[in-house]
Amino acid sequence: MERVIVPVNSIVAVGSLAFDSIQTPFGHAERALGGSANYFSLAASFFTEVRCVGVVGEDYPEDALAALESRAVRIEGIQRANGRTFHWSGRYGDDLNEAQTLDTQLNVFETFAPTIPESYRDSAFLFLGNIAPALQRSVLEQLPKKRFVALDTMNYWIGGTREALLDVIGHVQALVVNETEIRLLSGERGIAAASDWVLKRGPKIVVVKRGEYGAFLRMGDQAFAVPALPLRTVLDPTGAGDSFAGGFMGYLAQQGGEPTFEDLKRAVVLGSIMASLTVEQFSFEGLLKATGSEISRRYEQFYQLTQFPTFLPPARA
Amino acid sequence: MERVIVPVNSIVAVGSLAFDSIQTPFGHAERALGGSANYFSLAASFFTEVRCVGVVGEDYPEDALAALESRAVRIEGIQRANGRTFHWSGRYGDDLNEAQTLDTQLNVFETFAPTIPESYRDSAFLFLGNIAPALQRSVLEQLPKKRFVALDTMNYWIGGTREALLDVIGHVQALVVNETEIRLLSGERGIAAASDWVLKRGPKIVVVKRGEYGAFLRMGDQAFAVPALPLRTVLDPTGAGDSFAGGFMGYLAQQGGEPTFEDLKRAVVLGSIMASLTVEQFSFEGLLKATGSEISRRYEQFYQLTQFPTFLPPARA
Repeated sequence: MERVIVPVNSIVAVGSLAFDSIQTPFGHAERALGGSANYFSLAASFFTEVRCVGVVGEDYPEDALAALESRAVRIEGIQRANGRTFHWSGRYGDDLNEAQTLDTQLNVFETFAPTIPESYRDSAFLFLGNIAPALQRSVLEQLPKKRFVALDTMNYWIGGTREALLDVIGHVQALVVNETEIRLLSGERGIAAASDWVLKRGPKIVVVKRGEYGAFLRMGDQAFAVPALPLRTVLDPTGAGDSFAGGFMGYLAQQGGEPTFEDLKRAVVLGSIMASLTVEQFSFEGLLKATGSEISRRYEQFYQLTQFPTFLPPARA
Repeated sequence: MERVIVPVNSIVAVGSLAFDSIQTPFGHAERALGGSANYFSLAASFFTEVRCVGVVGEDYPEDALAALESRAVRIEGIQRANGRTFHWSGRYGDDLNEAQTLDTQLNVFETFAPTIPESYRDSAFLFLGNIAPALQRSVLEQLPKKRFVALDTMNYWIGGTREALLDVIGHVQALVVNETEIRLLSGERGIAAASDWVLKRGPKIVVVKRGEYGAFLRMGDQAFAVPALPLRTVLDPTGAGDSFAGGFMGYLAQQGGEPTFEDLKRAVVLGSIMASLTVEQFSFEGLLKATGSEISRRYEQFYQLTQFPTFLPPARA
């Protein structure tokens, strides 16, 4: 693998490594490799060193871990436990923005207690993927040098463990969720009011993922929004949200320090690009095939898609 | 009314003038003034002279026509017929992007045969609002100097009078529809493929209105997309699409000539602004209260919301 050596801030990423069985209007996949930690780590690996934390069962293939290593993702925080790997089954109908869960087999994930290896403990950036809020909290406490933490969650935790979730949200810099989730969390339908609500609960930054409608960013009174690239092929939206988070956090870690709003804008565009690469293929094939030049090409495409002239002749009063 | 005198190209606008009875999660309105021609004309009047064509019944108030005249919209093409005015009843649920029709009383609209007054016949710009394709076609033929025609339609015509609709679409420069409509028309789910389909049927330009997710533009291989402004108050989405079309066409007419892609981008932003003004109020109150400086302020807001830095450090290959 070609590597450009630059000083980087590593990211610790906690989440699931899983088998996904997926039906979409365009095909299906049985026991495809997936999970939030996989998608996040591969996407972020284009920008910085990623240190993965998770658990797999005895049935998880060695070459799936080798795929992470091929992108220089560090895997010493991935435990192999007795039993079977987490298995999610879902279906997408015509609305590709939302999966319908058919079955969830937690398996080894049920008793997962994330442990941060000593070798990861100097990381300043942390991504808390969608796992139980209590586990997210325990990871927070194991990283003494954390400076920038982003958190994802899902409806299950918003409804079932709301207090624990609000507690951990109160300790992170950025909430990165999808639109259904922020509505459920805040009780507000509109994205402006919903992000206002979150900004009062701790995070300085809110990112809302809107599937094929792009993404929305808030920091204080500043707002930014991008559409999604209009893709001609979408095979499988699974992992889009975690790939987005990977591009977003990977870029922020690469930049290091406290992100400016301009940094965050670029990070949202790069997150959108990583998501666009993921949805064009099943599993994380799109991320494995991606290249730095393809990412740059899509950045330029985003620029063309969204930029417009500032000068405007006066309207009639 | 303050008027900036600039040479302008007038627009002929054909559509409905109506009473709307509307329920939204935020309130309701009984027999509020509405209709595509009203929303379009008021929105476009901020940019150029609008010449309205439509029909009202005996029950339509004089001061509603005076509202159009207060914005210098020409109304000699509005017929007053015996009988009652078109009356639409609809409801918006949690999905503010799509209304559910509860009742449609066509009334005088049922026998409407649009006639273009002699005084309108030198217009080069034409907006064919959502009426029967055969009527849209008859209007086309009554405007010998037309150079730029935009057409809107709805599911009712796409399903019921498909051949007539495809015929008239084959004679216009721009199709301006919402996302549900272009999916139904093209049979394609994705916006890229759906707009490809339309571009093969005649129009050089396709604009897709996506409600709170903004708007999408295609001309040839070029694409442009804007999100919607994140509004804190949305009272009633009725008329947003026609207000969008009014801002879009009004600006293009003001510029005159064959629009460049840059012109079209600005027009999409201005369309989005006029829609944002409409949805903050019931009926067309938002458009009546609007000012040139508020439109300019929202243009700047759109710019801040969507523009991002071009420079990007290299990703790791």
